[in-house]
Amino acid sequence: MMIIMKSNATPQEVEHVIEHIKEIGLSVHLSQGVETTIIGAIGETHNIPIDQFEVLDGVETVQRITQPFKLASRQFHPENSIFPIDGFSVGSEELALIAGPCSVESRSQILETAHAVKEAGANALRGGVFKPRTSPYSFQGLGEEGLELLAEAREATGLPIVVEIMSQVQIDVMVKYVDVLQVGARNMQNFNLLRVIGDTQTPVLLKRGLSASIEELLMSAEYILAGGNKQVLLCERGIRTFETATRNTTDINAVPVLKSLTHLPVILDPSHSTGHFDYVEAIARAAVAAGADGLIVEVHPDPAHAVSDGRQSLKPERFAAMVKQVSQIAEIMGRRLASAKSPTH
Amino acid sequence: MMIIMKSNATPQEVEHVIEHIKEIGLSVHLSQGVETTIIGAIGETHNIPIDQFEVLDGVETVQRITQPFKLASRQFHPENSIFPIDGFSVGSEELALIAGPCSVESRSQILETAHAVKEAGANALRGGVFKPRTSPYSFQGLGEEGLELLAEAREATGLPIVVEIMSQVQIDVMVKYVDVLQVGARNMQNFNLLRVIGDTQTPVLLKRGLSASIEELLMSAEYILAGGNKQVLLCERGIRTFETATRNTTDINAVPVLKSLTHLPVILDPSHSTGHFDYVEAIARAAVAAGADGLIVEVHPDPAHAVSDGRQSLKPERFAAMVKQVSQIAEIMGRRLASAKSPTH
Amino acid sequence: MMIIMKSNATPQEVEHVIEHIKEIGLSVHLSQGVETTIIGAIGETHNIPIDQFEVLDGVETVQRITQPFKLASRQFHPENSIFPIDGFSVGSEELALIAGPCSVESRSQILETAHAVKEAGANALRGGVFKPRTSPYSFQGLGEEGLELLAEAREATGLPIVVEIMSQVQIDVMVKYVDVLQVGARNMQNFNLLRVIGDTQTPVLLKRGLSASIEELLMSAEYILAGGNKQVLLCERGIRTFETATRNTTDINAVPVLKSLTHLPVILDPSHSTGHFDYVEAIARAAVAAGADGLIVEVHPDPAHAVSDGRQSLKPERFAAMVKQVSQIAEIMGRRLASAKSPTH
Amino acid sequence: MMIIMKSNATPQEVEHVIEHIKEIGLSVHLSQGVETTIIGAIGETHNIPIDQFEVLDGVETVQRITQPFKLASRQFHPENSIFPIDGFSVGSEELALIAGPCSVESRSQILETAHAVKEAGANALRGGVFKPRTSPYSFQGLGEEGLELLAEAREATGLPIVVEIMSQVQIDVMVKYVDVLQVGARNMQNFNLLRVIGDTQTPVLLKRGLSASIEELLMSAEYILAGGNKQVLLCERGIRTFETATRNTTDINAVPVLKSLTHLPVILDPSHSTGHFDYVEAIARAAVAAGADGLIVEVHPDPAHAVSDGRQSLKPERFAAMVKQVSQIAEIMGRRLASAKSPTH
Repeated sequence: MMIIMKSNATPQEVEHVIEHIKEIGLSVHLSQGVETTIIGAIGETHNIPIDQFEVLDGVETVQRITQPFKLASRQFHPENSIFPIDGFSVGSEELALIAGPCSVESRSQILETAHAVKEAGANALRGGVFKPRTSPYSFQGLGEEGLELLAEAREATGLPIVVEIMSQVQIDVMVKYVDVLQVGARNMQNFNLLRVIGDTQTPVLLKRGLSASIEELLMSAEYILAGGNKQVLLCERGIRTFETATRNTTDINAVPVLKSLTHLPVILDPSHSTGHFDYVEAIARAAVAAGADGLIVEVHPDPAHAVSDGRQSLKPERFAAMVKQVSQIAEIMGRRLASAKSPTH
Repeated sequence: MMIIMKSNATPQEVEHVIEHIKEIGLSVHLSQGVETTIIGAIGETHNIPIDQFEVLDGVETVQRITQPFKLASRQFHPENSIFPIDGFSVGSEELALIAGPCSVESRSQILETAHAVKEAGANALRGGVFKPRTSPYSFQGLGEEGLELLAEAREATGLPIVVEIMSQVQIDVMVKYVDVLQVGARNMQNFNLLRVIGDTQTPVLLKRGLSASIEELLMSAEYILAGGNKQVLLCERGIRTFETATRNTTDINAVPVLKSLTHLPVILDPSHSTGHFDYVEAIARAAVAAGADGLIVEVHPDPAHAVSDGRQSLKPERFAAMVKQVSQIAEIMGRRLASAKSPTH
Repeated sequence: MMIIMKSNATPQEVEHVIEHIKEIGLSVHLSQGVETTIIGAIGETHNIPIDQFEVLDGVETVQRITQPFKLASRQFHPENSIFPIDGFSVGSEELALIAGPCSVESRSQILETAHAVKEAGANALRGGVFKPRTSPYSFQGLGEEGLELLAEAREATGLPIVVEIMSQVQIDVMVKYVDVLQVGARNMQNFNLLRVIGDTQTPVLLKRGLSASIEELLMSAEYILAGGNKQVLLCERGIRTFETATRNTTDINAVPVLKSLTHLPVILDPSHSTGHFDYVEAIARAAVAAGADGLIVEVHPDPAHAVSDGRQSLKPERFAAMVKQVSQIAEIMGRRLASAKSPTH
Repeated sequence: MMIIMKSNATPQEVEHVIEHIKEIGLSVHLSQGVETTIIGAIGETHNIPIDQFEVLDGVETVQRITQPFKLASRQFHPENSIFPIDGFSVGSEELALIAGPCSVESRSQILETAHAVKEAGANALRGGVFKPRTSPYSFQGLGEEGLELLAEAREATGLPIVVEIMSQVQIDVMVKYVDVLQVGARNMQNFNLLRVIGDTQTPVLLKRGLSASIEELLMSAEYILAGGNKQVLLCERGIRTFETATRNTTDINAVPVLKSLTHLPVILDPSHSTGHFDYVEAIARAAVAAGADGLIVEVHPDPAHAVSDGRQSLKPERFAAMVKQVSQIAEIMGRRLASAKSPTH
């Protein structure tokens, strides 16, 4: 940590900062320039709030040198993290392809979708049963009944299931049913939730918050990793900007930046990151070309009657066309579509 | 709701949209211009997702005419909502002045702060006991022990206490101790939490999310109101923008916009919205001048040793100076500082 | 244009709006619902400011139905615009690949770069001679001397040259030397500049402003098109958001959105949109996969000694590797790298 | 400047950076910690691009310690800059109150407005004659004819006139007529324009760009100051964010931040920063309460027939009411409304 003193800081102020550094167990490196004095605080600083120094008299600004995350950092773990999700390996040369409806609505809807996305090449099934809806008047999900339906779809198709958990009180029922726990964008900094997930051994799909920085996403992953659950899959799903032509702005830069900063696998959600089915294919191709380890895509057999996110859902035939395009890009990138395993019965 | 058709939409596509509108129980108003056909869907539309229409063939775009919130809307409730917090009335001509440390750290710290802010003119005490921290390695709060200390501070000073709730599982212990439940920015769309709070009768301070729109803030208030809890106090606390000179950007526009859209009281948090103690006074004055119903301000007796948010905390004497300045502005705005009630012993 | 009245608007207010519509030569379509009256203003509305209606008593809000741009719109010109730049066709199946240094610094630098990028597969050479620099103390460009050097590089390699124009007073000298006039992000709404460019017949590369919406980019293109210059090439170069891990956020969504809204060709600048050479290749691949008609990339033989933008410049050998990767993606997208023509001597 | 090396940087890489620092005439301060080596580059660094170091092998990141602006900095000029505009002193205890229409439309319009705003307490008149319009089909201003009308209004009322300059080619005619040259948001980084203005001695009102950082605003001021023109008045006019409830987001934080970083006077434009006349008064009060040195406000006698910005223009009587409110706040802030001088005839 570097503490930069004001140009008019007094020797007493400099001395006071030095004492404060020693008081918290760090060592000091003093650098006195013509205009500026800079004081380095050296040691285990990643868990020390920089505020502590910023409020001292004579301090201009404080800059962190080392990253505030450790377990998620590629610096301390240079190899890619690869872990199995029932049927395929995330983070490997196999491309993750998670597809399904925004919400589970009925038995026929989820079974029809599961079969269709499997046939098209998906290797996991998504479907929401507890829905975070902006309006209290919108459909809030089928709850445990939806989990039963997803389990049936898994049995019928062999696809592992990815389901969003909205609250720490749902952890037991979720772990019982699902293959991958999804943490939604609005919960990326629900730290209580992150902690209970960190206590499980179920793989996690952690979505970036609407206005979360890449560093904050990694800090949230750090919560889960610190709890002992190492199977964290990061997901870029669009950020909020001034542009209104699309629902969100796909931060495609996040793909190479994350691949550089962390060893964790990174996928992209072109449905939420664009908000419109017309743009999903282009952004799915772009994500794979940028180096993403996979995609999560909303697919619905009848978007006009979907209870949620109809506008951004692909019909199954269009999803199948998308998979073909994506496969070609994946091949160039040295990846391939993993086949899902066979149905369990 | 207005459905605008593409210029090349066929009569069959127009007819199909009309049928869809009738199917969901709305009536139709057709408007055929030279270039564009516009179809109005009239009735109770505030809980109908516009996606349903956007995916139909031939539809260019869909625009909502009526606000998606109802209970929070000034249109349906023109008078200001005023409700009592132990000792003063929020939303009235009495200015709410909530002050205290980011985190409760120790008995002496919270008691010292409580006495100091009361003396300076505060009418409520804030203090965090469950802390949402970006890093898993940061101080996470004293938990229930902190609530005991806050209760003691309330008894000693007569100040009602405002405490952040982070999860639905904390609701019972929180309701037992606190006078106002605070929902933090990161939980503004934690809908499970909003629902359990809606089931209580404890006043709520609902903070705007870092990148939440004003409309989304009102939709979150709607969740609580829909549950039956009418005592919701909205709080602007800065939004995330490209500007890095301050921690957040105070959206001062939100004050008059919210006062126009809703009957709920609106306060501002200049500590978080600037992130630096040097700017707190200026923004506190601006908030009251813009018409805010109150302020929530971080105060700490020794910011350099605060476990969190030291950089944006005022020392008690500086807070007292701030209150003097704010009082003068308040007077011009036809408001006055409410006195806190006397201690209970 | 739809004028939505307040729910408590009086019949007089409605009547007044109707008169105002007729006064400016539009026809009226009245739609009276139970809660809301909506008044359609029908006719040539794309050049009528919506403010005119928003200020009338009783008006809640005004919504534009038709796009405010016309010449740039794909609606009125469904076929892709294709136009020749000395040696290749922009907007066709040939991928535009414009490369070169941020600034022209010296004869040897620009010649060396020109030969290197040509050999790697570029079909046009970029280089700045008038530089828009944030700081008045930074290098401001070689001016006309730089144009002479670029002309020499063109003669030596056959590559057409793309150069930024910063002010309307430079138009004559620029048109004399350059093959493509570049309008930089900071000048996207320099309307005087756009107008003088619209009066020429030189192709234009129009960069999106740092915080310009896609609609505003198209409105700026409309200025040039309205002047009579139809050869406008749009360029996404990253937008400003809260994320600080990269210099800008590549708005990859803009590629399919622009291809859908306009017939003009669209390229992407991964150097500025990321700000770091490490991320340029990934984003270049993503752009082509998303459907971009080309790329503009900064290349410098010695980035550490570049006078500007060294951090985001590729060395020639890395650029050559990038071209190989991009070519493979281009092939899948049904495109190919156009060869530059032979040197003129 | 601090160059932070990667944790695995080699001694050769460290040595190479040190040589590079010496090569450009700076001195070196080496700081070797357990995990990180930090190299300070000491001397006149404010005009050295940090890119030069970021591209060197082994470098993790480079951080600037000193501000990149100098003439605008309060550090080098602790006293407030105060300068006369015909009739009053900007930056002093006199509050600048600039008012008038967006565009000069006709003789009667500008004369009527000038008399009205003067009577209400304004001390300068604004009015646009060259208009930067997003659409080429919108009204583009009266040009020099408008300047004649403004000059007539000045003579009739004694109010100095503030007019936007859009291009360097307008400098001679503008300097001949106007008292204050306004640089609009879209031209904040039109460096050619800034340079010609720096060569004059006419006071300048420099508006912040829609997505310009506070530092960039100060760098643009630095261009003008470096040219020799010291009379620069900064203007916060709202920034672009994700929030769509208002046209822009007033960055009220910018007022105290700018007052802290620079000695130049700072005013605020509540018309553009909100985009709606209903919110102008609240934000005008907030600006003065936050410490602004003045306001610039759009006033039009008949907003419904204004050719531009009608929605955000106050009618004269509402402006007069605003001035009364603002005066009361100003008094608390130790300021007063300066009276305009008497008419010149």
